[in-house]
Amino acid sequence: MNSSLPTYEDVVQASQRLEGIAHRTPVLTSSSLDAGLGAQVFFKCENLQRIGAFKFRGGYNALAKLDNEQRQAGVVAFSSGNHAQAVALAARMLDIKATIVMPHDAPAAKKAATQGYGAHVVEYDRHNQDREEVAHALMQAQGLTLIPPFNHPDVIAGQGTAVKELLEETGGLDALFIPLGGGGLLSGSLLAAHAINPDCAVYGVEPEAGNDGQQSFRKGEVIRIAAPDSIADGALTQALGSLTFPIIRQHARDILTVSDQQLLQALRFFAERMKIVVEPTGCLGAAAAFNEIAPVRGKRIGVLLSGGNVDLAAYSDYLKTA
Amino acid sequence: MNSSLPTYEDVVQASQRLEGIAHRTPVLTSSSLDAGLGAQVFFKCENLQRIGAFKFRGGYNALAKLDNEQRQAGVVAFSSGNHAQAVALAARMLDIKATIVMPHDAPAAKKAATQGYGAHVVEYDRHNQDREEVAHALMQAQGLTLIPPFNHPDVIAGQGTAVKELLEETGGLDALFIPLGGGGLLSGSLLAAHAINPDCAVYGVEPEAGNDGQQSFRKGEVIRIAAPDSIADGALTQALGSLTFPIIRQHARDILTVSDQQLLQALRFFAERMKIVVEPTGCLGAAAAFNEIAPVRGKRIGVLLSGGNVDLAAYSDYLKTA
Repeated sequence: MNSSLPTYEDVVQASQRLEGIAHRTPVLTSSSLDAGLGAQVFFKCENLQRIGAFKFRGGYNALAKLDNEQRQAGVVAFSSGNHAQAVALAARMLDIKATIVMPHDAPAAKKAATQGYGAHVVEYDRHNQDREEVAHALMQAQGLTLIPPFNHPDVIAGQGTAVKELLEETGGLDALFIPLGGGGLLSGSLLAAHAINPDCAVYGVEPEAGNDGQQSFRKGEVIRIAAPDSIADGALTQALGSLTFPIIRQHARDILTVSDQQLLQALRFFAERMKIVVEPTGCLGAAAAFNEIAPVRGKRIGVLLSGGNVDLAAYSDYLKTA
Repeated sequence: MNSSLPTYEDVVQASQRLEGIAHRTPVLTSSSLDAGLGAQVFFKCENLQRIGAFKFRGGYNALAKLDNEQRQAGVVAFSSGNHAQAVALAARMLDIKATIVMPHDAPAAKKAATQGYGAHVVEYDRHNQDREEVAHALMQAQGLTLIPPFNHPDVIAGQGTAVKELLEETGGLDALFIPLGGGGLLSGSLLAAHAINPDCAVYGVEPEAGNDGQQSFRKGEVIRIAAPDSIADGALTQALGSLTFPIIRQHARDILTVSDQQLLQALRFFAERMKIVVEPTGCLGAAAAFNEIAPVRGKRIGVLLSGGNVDLAAYSDYLKTA
């Protein structure tokens, strides 16, 4: 695995690789929200991306860069959900065999969608087994190439293409609010923002219960926490990566946190006023902006909605519990 | 009120009037849907339009054409929901006083949104009062101009701009599936499709329980039915209009019907797979296409999603009752 830090040039190349392959997702706005917040907010809708999340960008970019031998042997990924679907779909498009290691309690919709894309799913127990060990065993037994969910230069570069599109389309922003789990999306976004719009304040946003990123950012070293408990099931990572952390440390303005209650309020706002389905993790950036956890008044704000993959039964409950 | 039939030229002028005012709504696609149907389907997302429905187009177009005297006196509209919000928002944007006559049992979200746009809401009993009489009394007492929900040339012309955008963006389609209530959207769409893409088969789609349009189309005269019962609350009209019917009769390929169960299946598909909130009425065209009530295999299909305004509590229930 290439372990040197990716650069903006890698984001530009990923962007060319994804042209006509990934959706150029729409940027939506709401006049009534803007009037209430006293800001201009641009939502980059990666919930409307292929597989329902930005993860397709990084997954496809990483798979497209494999050599012929690697493609023939196949790939393996471990993921709580969206990365799994991303690798599964990208693998099918590139005619590569994909094996996905998923927690046994991952949302049923995510498991079914991954299998629907033709991938082989191997389950593990999130509480008693280490998913990296499970994946590494498969790699060694079958010669598979591991596609990590965030700590990989090609994955990071791919994730950065969404913010590149947003900044180009809006002509520049004062601040950006980006969901933060392992940091693939945030570090890729930082590479793009720093190159295109260096004055833009970029915030990573985590669930309160899983604030390893905030602790790490403030302490200046990677802090590992116990498995957090939040409805933001795509941001339950325990630590930033060796590649994502240095980029975040160098370029992020701050790391913010929001509560599950704030995530639910944002989720309901998106259904009721903007007519889009956003999963709890996808609401992280929005919840921070709506609650003005960093300054937004008088500013032009970008909010990345990272995904929309949520079990309908759970989603139905979220809409009811205000 | 101008009672001559609108033409495609009126749609073109409405389109210029709405430029930079209405959203140019995104066109979404789903590879997995296309693979299943053996068709290429393009969804025109008017649920993502201002006020959450296409109705903004026609409402704004009609109000923008009023003279100074009419603007100063104010306007009145009767509507089960989306037209109310459309007139309320357009009136606020054009600094016109709006009075909206709504059924007392209209969805709470629609009533609140209408008032939120600054309109004065007058309620009536849908089962015992005639909304047109209520509105006409207000017109005469206060000198207000009536903005009807569908049977008005400027409203029809405005509604036609969505399909104009869709056909221009996709470069032409084999068939179009359009929700049908009073026929404003369908007749406007027919004007646009007939001018831009005359070979395109355009279908209007109604709820099974309220098939006055289908009866009228097949008999060649406007048939009035008793107030229908369907979850498609935006298509509970009892008869087509004197302006919409002649256009529909001349240009529509056929009028189709779908069941409430088929609407719910489509609604769930949009939440689960496409990450968008579509109200039951907005699913009419999609339900007909998904169930192949007219031929779709091997074709390029346009489906107009007319709106996304639905009470969250009701929507939450719809997601659960498969």
